[in-house]
Amino acid sequence: MEICKEFLLIGEKAKKAARQLAFASTEAKNRSLLAMAQALVDNQAEILKANAIDVQRAEEKGLRKSLINRLRLTSNAILEMSNAIREVVNLPDPVGSGEFWTRPNGLKIQKTRVPLGVVAMIYEARPNVTVDAAALCLKSGNACILRGGSEAIESNIVLARIISEAAERSGSPAGSIQLVELTDREYALQLMRMNKYIDVIIPRGGAGLIQAVIENSTVPVIETGTGVCHAFVDKDADLAKAVEIVFNAKTQKPGVCNALETLLVHQDIAQEYLPLIGKKFKDYGVEIRGCAKVQSILEYAFPAEEDDWATEYLDLIISVKVVSDLDEALDHIYRYSTKHSEVIITENYTTAQRFLNEVDAAAVYVNASTRFTDGGRFGYGAEIGISTQKLHARGPMALPELTTIKYIIYGENHIVT
Amino acid sequence: MEICKEFLLIGEKAKKAARQLAFASTEAKNRSLLAMAQALVDNQAEILKANAIDVQRAEEKGLRKSLINRLRLTSNAILEMSNAIREVVNLPDPVGSGEFWTRPNGLKIQKTRVPLGVVAMIYEARPNVTVDAAALCLKSGNACILRGGSEAIESNIVLARIISEAAERSGSPAGSIQLVELTDREYALQLMRMNKYIDVIIPRGGAGLIQAVIENSTVPVIETGTGVCHAFVDKDADLAKAVEIVFNAKTQKPGVCNALETLLVHQDIAQEYLPLIGKKFKDYGVEIRGCAKVQSILEYAFPAEEDDWATEYLDLIISVKVVSDLDEALDHIYRYSTKHSEVIITENYTTAQRFLNEVDAAAVYVNASTRFTDGGRFGYGAEIGISTQKLHARGPMALPELTTIKYIIYGENHIVT
Repeated sequence: MEICKEFLLIGEKAKKAARQLAFASTEAKNRSLLAMAQALVDNQAEILKANAIDVQRAEEKGLRKSLINRLRLTSNAILEMSNAIREVVNLPDPVGSGEFWTRPNGLKIQKTRVPLGVVAMIYEARPNVTVDAAALCLKSGNACILRGGSEAIESNIVLARIISEAAERSGSPAGSIQLVELTDREYALQLMRMNKYIDVIIPRGGAGLIQAVIENSTVPVIETGTGVCHAFVDKDADLAKAVEIVFNAKTQKPGVCNALETLLVHQDIAQEYLPLIGKKFKDYGVEIRGCAKVQSILEYAFPAEEDDWATEYLDLIISVKVVSDLDEALDHIYRYSTKHSEVIITENYTTAQRFLNEVDAAAVYVNASTRFTDGGRFGYGAEIGISTQKLHARGPMALPELTTIKYIIYGENHIVT
Repeated sequence: MEICKEFLLIGEKAKKAARQLAFASTEAKNRSLLAMAQALVDNQAEILKANAIDVQRAEEKGLRKSLINRLRLTSNAILEMSNAIREVVNLPDPVGSGEFWTRPNGLKIQKTRVPLGVVAMIYEARPNVTVDAAALCLKSGNACILRGGSEAIESNIVLARIISEAAERSGSPAGSIQLVELTDREYALQLMRMNKYIDVIIPRGGAGLIQAVIENSTVPVIETGTGVCHAFVDKDADLAKAVEIVFNAKTQKPGVCNALETLLVHQDIAQEYLPLIGKKFKDYGVEIRGCAKVQSILEYAFPAEEDDWATEYLDLIISVKVVSDLDEALDHIYRYSTKHSEVIITENYTTAQRFLNEVDAAAVYVNASTRFTDGGRFGYGAEIGISTQKLHARGPMALPELTTIKYIIYGENHIVT
């Protein structure tokens, strides 16, 4: 595939910046982050003006309201973006930390964290990702190439210009933060073939976007992910807890990847539990799609089709199934899970341990809402995405996941014999 | 791409085995490894017979002698393979170790090492890789799918059958170790698209094989690699050390990825140093391909073409260039390095630190041979390959690199508000 001239220039510039950023001090990087945070606040009016164009176009095109809401910026949203950068300043810099040992022959080996190099983000119409990703990449010493959705292009152009100018003015190398203004799909495909310039691509967005990157990228990808998350309410569950946790996991923020999509209920307590959670869901406007047994207990449940078990609704809909035992629950999860977040609600120690051992997912819970799968809530202070692949990073990714290893070896005339 | 029926069966079987292996105890896995080691010795005659067929075919086809030598097995080679498995028994099991913390809200988070799942190895005509890879995968709780080169197919079929039967007989799940007997290229391509069944593909072999996997695989890949390794002999080098280290890095085992391919010499000491190392190379039969300055000093040096700077000879050939200073050396390495192993020879502290900071490679050395880049020599006790990519693993990969993370979270009715 031929790479267009603009992209080659962006790639060269990013590589050059990355070469410098790799040994920038934490102090220097923090200075740039503070300048970026301040520049956003100082240039609020310009950002809002560009964003208004995006929003107007989106409205004219008749885009979904939820999409327009994620696109829209306000003074407060800009302040939040600025504050998010200031929080990154306070996070520890992973670069330059590591382990050290000496071999029996006296060779001293330092296993050191270093930046990945050039990180490309491909994402959808959320302008705050432009700022978040740039800040996390800069703090971890990476140059970034940002490719947001076309719906947010005017906002992204202004945001990227403001923060990259601020970074450069405060001493970071030119090209540390670059936005791709060509948002056609064919250009995204070119980006995915720039192995010579890009060390990793992180797609953030819906299943279609992520699948397209996995299918087409020769650059290593960190898959972030769709979450068909399950809760299994065991026969030994405290049913009051089970109502509270399941309701929270489904409804607290239904549009995100760690929200619950499927509820599995042990047959021994189905008759008692389903009406309790069913009523709460019904009152809140959650649509229930159930197996035959669920429908026989909850007359207001719709029938679940085979597809429902594999669907990430991201909406006030839940699929519900009665299972005969833990093994059937484990088998169902094994078959339909996207390996994001799974929870068992039980008071039985051995059942809990079996679930924790045998379920293969980034995060496996006992008696807690799946909504905790998040960099901030895990204590990482930030998040560049949630990996659902097993390579490099799994679960919430923060600053250390934006680094790799470099072995530094101090010899004293060591040769191999 | 359509996946053939045989591969779907292999994939299903591997996934099923992986699900069991994920929580096999270290004791159980070691029991299988010991049975595998013993079975190799017990079935020596059968292995040698199959191998003789491969060797005969290779000779009839007129394959290169070095290839045939790598293909050929002897009683001693089988004993070595068997002992290599016994060494894996003694290595610590990375599965089940990790970190643990408690969040301010009381949520307890365990970041635990778990197996990757199903690991596919694509490699060339080295039968010992079949045994090594199977042993390392089993110890780390992974099911493996092995696809070796067609030249070794008879040996591989027998080896894989012996070790997989031994593993199963001693309690490991069926399908833990499987060999792909279809060695045509089109089948390798199918393997690279089996995202549903395979968690990671590790190619081991020449640049062509690795490039084909990177280009075609939608399954995550760990690139192992070609090494265009450089030594820079600084003006402040101890020239006696510089002769010894450079000679060792080039000649101790020239056919491997951590062998030296390019020598950069500071102009201030070129007149003195080049004749010293040049004579040693000449006497040993190492062909020197030099820049104009090198040729003016060593009358027996051949001219280096542009291509030479990017070539991994894997042979008794070295490209040599005189550079004006450290910056030119760094620029040359930046441009031509495959980021495997790079070394500076110097007595100057500040020069050494600049080289270590600024060179981007898996392993960067001061005053030691690049031949140390190796799992065994780093103290890891084993090696499944040397990663030259930045994602997941970089440098020598051992057992921990065959694992990923699983977050296990103990809640007490925790919900997100």
